[in-house]
Amino acid sequence: MNEYVFTYEQLYQYTIDVFTTIGCRGQDAHTAAAVLLSADLRGIDSHGIARLTGYVRLWEPSRVNTTPQINITHETPSTAVVDGDAGLGLVVAPAAMNIAIEKARNVGTGWVSVSNSNHFGIAGYHAMMALDHDMIGIAMTNASALVAPTFSLERMLGTNPIAVAIPAGNEPPFVADMATTTAANGKLEILQRKNADTPHGWVQDRAGQPTTDAHALKSGGSLLPLGSDRDHGSHKGYALGSIVDIFSAVLSGGSYGPWAPPFPAYVPMPENMPGKGLGHFFGAMRIDAFRKAGEFKTHMDNWISRFRQAIPSDPQQKVLIPGDPEREMEALRRAQGIPIVLSVVEELRQLSEKLKIINHPF
Amino acid sequence: MNEYVFTYEQLYQYTIDVFTTIGCRGQDAHTAAAVLLSADLRGIDSHGIARLTGYVRLWEPSRVNTTPQINITHETPSTAVVDGDAGLGLVVAPAAMNIAIEKARNVGTGWVSVSNSNHFGIAGYHAMMALDHDMIGIAMTNASALVAPTFSLERMLGTNPIAVAIPAGNEPPFVADMATTTAANGKLEILQRKNADTPHGWVQDRAGQPTTDAHALKSGGSLLPLGSDRDHGSHKGYALGSIVDIFSAVLSGGSYGPWAPPFPAYVPMPENMPGKGLGHFFGAMRIDAFRKAGEFKTHMDNWISRFRQAIPSDPQQKVLIPGDPEREMEALRRAQGIPIVLSVVEELRQLSEKLKIINHPF
Repeated sequence: MNEYVFTYEQLYQYTIDVFTTIGCRGQDAHTAAAVLLSADLRGIDSHGIARLTGYVRLWEPSRVNTTPQINITHETPSTAVVDGDAGLGLVVAPAAMNIAIEKARNVGTGWVSVSNSNHFGIAGYHAMMALDHDMIGIAMTNASALVAPTFSLERMLGTNPIAVAIPAGNEPPFVADMATTTAANGKLEILQRKNADTPHGWVQDRAGQPTTDAHALKSGGSLLPLGSDRDHGSHKGYALGSIVDIFSAVLSGGSYGPWAPPFPAYVPMPENMPGKGLGHFFGAMRIDAFRKAGEFKTHMDNWISRFRQAIPSDPQQKVLIPGDPEREMEALRRAQGIPIVLSVVEELRQLSEKLKIINHPF
Repeated sequence: MNEYVFTYEQLYQYTIDVFTTIGCRGQDAHTAAAVLLSADLRGIDSHGIARLTGYVRLWEPSRVNTTPQINITHETPSTAVVDGDAGLGLVVAPAAMNIAIEKARNVGTGWVSVSNSNHFGIAGYHAMMALDHDMIGIAMTNASALVAPTFSLERMLGTNPIAVAIPAGNEPPFVADMATTTAANGKLEILQRKNADTPHGWVQDRAGQPTTDAHALKSGGSLLPLGSDRDHGSHKGYALGSIVDIFSAVLSGGSYGPWAPPFPAYVPMPENMPGKGLGHFFGAMRIDAFRKAGEFKTHMDNWISRFRQAIPSDPQQKVLIPGDPEREMEALRRAQGIPIVLSVVEELRQLSEKLKIINHPF
């Protein structure tokens, strides 16, 4: 047994305590905890409570401001640029998404580009905020450079995820949330822990050559864009990651490409940064700005059920709808608890000591 | 020598003649010819004049209306839904993109979903229309089902391309234009002509098994989503193709998924179509709705030149910016002419006879 299981409520209360201790205002601590733990609930363990210590490490050298004044610096009826004031992305992102939703309410769609922010948890959380408003939600972010473009030896882009959430009627919503790489860094970390090889096409070594060494990133290697190599469309994954970078950071005044600020606090900030902090981009589109929401949802139900009924290649493995695995994981973990690997539990125990949090579950 | 070379002007005048002969209005024929031939100029030969005969074959059984009344059926300040009246996508798409641009001029961004259309040529053309207005352009379309989602034996989606065009300053613009499959159908056609095998991961056979047979599509096989298989992220390519389908056709009232109307006129229309015709989706975002256009372009120049200077894995193959190969091809073909394979030349000669076009270059 190399993991412990905790209830969502245990982790939620604890995470709020941590964020409050480092200075977050009450509502911000609640928001940050909800965003962070949505990753654990949905099975994206790399982006959840396992990163809590990392956020605190960014706060220690003041790379994160726990009492940000989040400001709109420029706007039109359908757009805004937001300066996150070096706040936690976990707090800045929902604030920016709410601006997009409000603009969509007024003029049909809202689009918000954010600079001067930090890591925002899972993109899917923010995109899904639109669903309750009968809107389509879109969220993306740039991130520290780990990915080599097609033909490049150098890491130039982050794993730059894109999330799109689309409401349905009786069916659960369509929720895509994907890194623009062949494999997310979190999947690599799982293989690293097991000392297992990666499939071909996930990473390249420091010489730019294909490798299956899960530890290649630590020795100067890179993640590969979705598509893996030129023959399999890696130029498309590279283009997608670039679009995320440009929408999130060039449009907002954030720091882009190889200059995106690193998440690990021990990595020095890049020199000559061309903008401020990480960038995000959010969109909200009101369904009834296009067609009646009820009509749309009926057709989404039809779309989803037709795709579910697609004849599978293997009768044991049905065709899934984006968001199915994460939703099933959330139901399971709400019922049975959230498993956390021992190394993370130990980190959180040490974090609690450092922050003098006495009531902790670890 | 299995191809002839023609000047752009020869092909342009001829294509206008063909569209005029089948009933297009003067301006529409010019627009359709410019859109269609932009594919030949940019080296995407599968989507250019090689398809002209196919468009005429759709017109013969009245699947295409050459004098459409293109109507906005619903709108908000930032959105519109357009009914293409079964017009040529080559004509409907630029009209819809112009609506998106006009809305962006007024409220910062414009988003237009189109139903009741047909194939619209290359997505990149429409996205690039935004560039002259200092806007970012986005274009996508659904298409006849050739692609099997992850785990599916059945074809459920088209190659559903996404194009994004972003202006720069001194550098040429960033233009991504990509099918959401590992390989576009046009690349498969090139291998079919040579009777060559495909790389692994492009197609599956009628049993849903991997194959390298370039002819597999003709015997019930499918193209694979970007990522090729589950281990390499095909669920992401499947999600991207689905988003294109939903934005283009579910949002507009078009026919989606496996019900998208086929391009070859000999393929019967699907039964129980849930909407009208093919769907497209267009977006325009005014740069200065986010930050000053000059400032943005300076940073785009910096982005582009930094990526061009990324250390390559192979010193002989520099890192490219999306749009580089197509732009270089266009310069070459404007100067030296456009090569057309003999089989297409012969088709066009027969088409000229059928339409009684006497002045033709073939």
